[in-house]
Amino acid sequence: MDAFPHRHVLGIEGMSRADIEHILDTSSAFLEVSRRPVRKVPTLRGKTVINLFYENSTRTRTSFELAGKRMSADVINISVASSSVSKGETLYDTVKTLEAMHPDVIVMRHASSGAPHFVAKHVRCSVINAGDGMHEHPTQALLDAFTIRRARGTLEGLTVAIVGDVLHSRVARSNALLLKQFGCTVRFVGPDTLVPPELAGYGVEIHHDVEEGVRGADVVMVLRVQTERLKGALLASLGEYSRTFGINRRRLALAKPDALVMHPGPMNRGVEIEPDVADGKTSAVLDQVEAGVAIRMTLLYLLAGEPGEA
Amino acid sequence: MDAFPHRHVLGIEGMSRADIEHILDTSSAFLEVSRRPVRKVPTLRGKTVINLFYENSTRTRTSFELAGKRMSADVINISVASSSVSKGETLYDTVKTLEAMHPDVIVMRHASSGAPHFVAKHVRCSVINAGDGMHEHPTQALLDAFTIRRARGTLEGLTVAIVGDVLHSRVARSNALLLKQFGCTVRFVGPDTLVPPELAGYGVEIHHDVEEGVRGADVVMVLRVQTERLKGALLASLGEYSRTFGINRRRLALAKPDALVMHPGPMNRGVEIEPDVADGKTSAVLDQVEAGVAIRMTLLYLLAGEPGEA
Amino acid sequence: MDAFPHRHVLGIEGMSRADIEHILDTSSAFLEVSRRPVRKVPTLRGKTVINLFYENSTRTRTSFELAGKRMSADVINISVASSSVSKGETLYDTVKTLEAMHPDVIVMRHASSGAPHFVAKHVRCSVINAGDGMHEHPTQALLDAFTIRRARGTLEGLTVAIVGDVLHSRVARSNALLLKQFGCTVRFVGPDTLVPPELAGYGVEIHHDVEEGVRGADVVMVLRVQTERLKGALLASLGEYSRTFGINRRRLALAKPDALVMHPGPMNRGVEIEPDVADGKTSAVLDQVEAGVAIRMTLLYLLAGEPGEA
Repeated sequence: MDAFPHRHVLGIEGMSRADIEHILDTSSAFLEVSRRPVRKVPTLRGKTVINLFYENSTRTRTSFELAGKRMSADVINISVASSSVSKGETLYDTVKTLEAMHPDVIVMRHASSGAPHFVAKHVRCSVINAGDGMHEHPTQALLDAFTIRRARGTLEGLTVAIVGDVLHSRVARSNALLLKQFGCTVRFVGPDTLVPPELAGYGVEIHHDVEEGVRGADVVMVLRVQTERLKGALLASLGEYSRTFGINRRRLALAKPDALVMHPGPMNRGVEIEPDVADGKTSAVLDQVEAGVAIRMTLLYLLAGEPGEA
Repeated sequence: MDAFPHRHVLGIEGMSRADIEHILDTSSAFLEVSRRPVRKVPTLRGKTVINLFYENSTRTRTSFELAGKRMSADVINISVASSSVSKGETLYDTVKTLEAMHPDVIVMRHASSGAPHFVAKHVRCSVINAGDGMHEHPTQALLDAFTIRRARGTLEGLTVAIVGDVLHSRVARSNALLLKQFGCTVRFVGPDTLVPPELAGYGVEIHHDVEEGVRGADVVMVLRVQTERLKGALLASLGEYSRTFGINRRRLALAKPDALVMHPGPMNRGVEIEPDVADGKTSAVLDQVEAGVAIRMTLLYLLAGEPGEA
Repeated sequence: MDAFPHRHVLGIEGMSRADIEHILDTSSAFLEVSRRPVRKVPTLRGKTVINLFYENSTRTRTSFELAGKRMSADVINISVASSSVSKGETLYDTVKTLEAMHPDVIVMRHASSGAPHFVAKHVRCSVINAGDGMHEHPTQALLDAFTIRRARGTLEGLTVAIVGDVLHSRVARSNALLLKQFGCTVRFVGPDTLVPPELAGYGVEIHHDVEEGVRGADVVMVLRVQTERLKGALLASLGEYSRTFGINRRRLALAKPDALVMHPGPMNRGVEIEPDVADGKTSAVLDQVEAGVAIRMTLLYLLAGEPGEA
């Protein structure tokens, strides 16, 4: 495979199957870097990565920061709480200012869907979308795909049940887009307020009965309940949600015998997932986290690495 | 030119013209470092830079952090919100504590004028003033001078109009002190509440009419309106300010044909500066940002570098 | 001395005298690293240190960050304010997530006594307790011991008066445990609300009269008054505390002539310690800070360094 043909990673939309396979293949090598006694390669020495986070996310920010540092890049963290944004600067001016400092990659999380795409149009450096509103979270979908492929040997033809608040989930959206490219059967599973019929437009099955939804699945991907949704009355209560859609051992038993359990984190134990499932022997939750660092090292390398170096 | 004769950079006051020229000349070399594919030199390996910020400033903190990292220094960020200051420790004890950890340079921003001078008196390491109250912001003046000199070839004999809330501006003060050393005509331009007659003591022209103020200028430097001043009734309203002192195309046309437009950021578009001026072809706003990293690399090098190394 | 026999540093409890001497001996070498012009060794290149702070502490976080960076480790700071904890994730899931990113050491400060011990039970990496509730602060006790030993030549047989809010002090607790191993006479000195008789169980003397408490002492270790205790009425007022237990020149004169004055910081000058004592010629307050970086470099090295390297 030759050079990566994109300057940015804004979403799974726009990525070919070949692009995705290239990323997953490369990530296997980088996964090993974090497992060595010396977890560092000189690949991105002298490159600058800016983590520009308009929403808090320890997990994702830490994963990108570690990925950058293990590649020997200089990493700068900017969180919105302490940024000039509070002084009323436009997003355009903020990123043009950062661009003038010659970063190689801006990793960006923003509450507004499309914000990274807007930024990408205006800067010479690369942009990685680390989650934009309810739109996409491509690095999460890539790390999920990597995790599934390692566990199952292939993505081809699997049945993946994505359970929970699909409507508001950028994770679900990016995963569906990716998995469809590999011929997976994707099921969106949840109450009709959170999994409305229109979502079938993604080429997925819609299930409002959790038992139907997980039956025979190779992978059960559990989404986080955003407890703030409760106020909006989309969910009756956490207890009610747990009773009707929480993944417990009894429900998991309806999936394939060795069905992989996944969750993007942070988990609400006892709400969308029972502890014995989260910690069960087919849980891949921590494999996902490990894969995250490898996927992000790969993307930084593909976007900022010098041709011919690794 | 020999060694830099200062241990600290506390203000433009106390710097000779030769000092300033030495800094500007050295910065040209460091500007190139950030433009290379490998944006890193080993010059300050094993040196420690502490960014001690008692006021938020993403722009300035990021600029110093990048400057330090591209010189291979270890950089530590301390922001006041999460510091022991909230536990009532004195500034003296905070900096003596930091000094005991053997930093080479403390970069300091503080709301009180003179705070970095106080600190410099009590520590063995170097101190760089990254903005103190309404007093000085020497690295901003240096990056501004660098930007002007690159654009014009010289600072000698230029007319520079500084427009806005000069009274409360450390940027204006440091710029005036620097530009006067190069024989510039400096004009302070703004309403009399923000540009009182006493400021003439800086050896500058005072203008309360913006058209008079910018007429024939080589450089129009627009200051940020501190919207919090509105509460103090020094400014009637943002709209009123914009109508009477905002820099738009019509007013800019009164300056020299290719007059440079500058702003220290963050900009209030549509208030002190119109978007078509901010983004116009003579706007140097982003050049200023780029220059900032180079100036700060230079200062860190001059204060913390080993003699004979570069 | 051979390899350090512990995987974690959770408390002085559980450390042998030989362990402590090994740490102190090694720290002398690392103290010199911070005093060199090039304050950096490659020892921990490719190792990852995570500073996981559930309570703010600029001093301790900065000390560990510098220690890690001067050893060439990659250091990641996570402070609770911006962490997923606010999203309701359990401590267990937070640290398992971090573990999956392959850190070598997690440095942890937490308001709950025993939190680092809980974490250590569940992760493969090393854990250093940077202060847990009112329980232990082993790196503080080690840096205090290092400071005393350098000043006195030995710890053997010294009399150490620890003055203040001993009841709530993890510093006092860890120091007492350590100093007892070296045959020191440890005195807990303070009002009976803060130094209740039960504390005699630590094998220490209890003094409610400050003059009795410091008389003939080799070391006077002053604890910080937690001003928030005032609300709980354990202390009548800061002024009252200062009059009855504050360490001033007159009281210090009752100790040995060259008695060392120590304070873990941040100090309330004029409350628990008078400025002329804090800044006096036998004050070791800043030596403690300097020692802190050396002790932390040592512990990171002993826990994460490769055998045979230094």
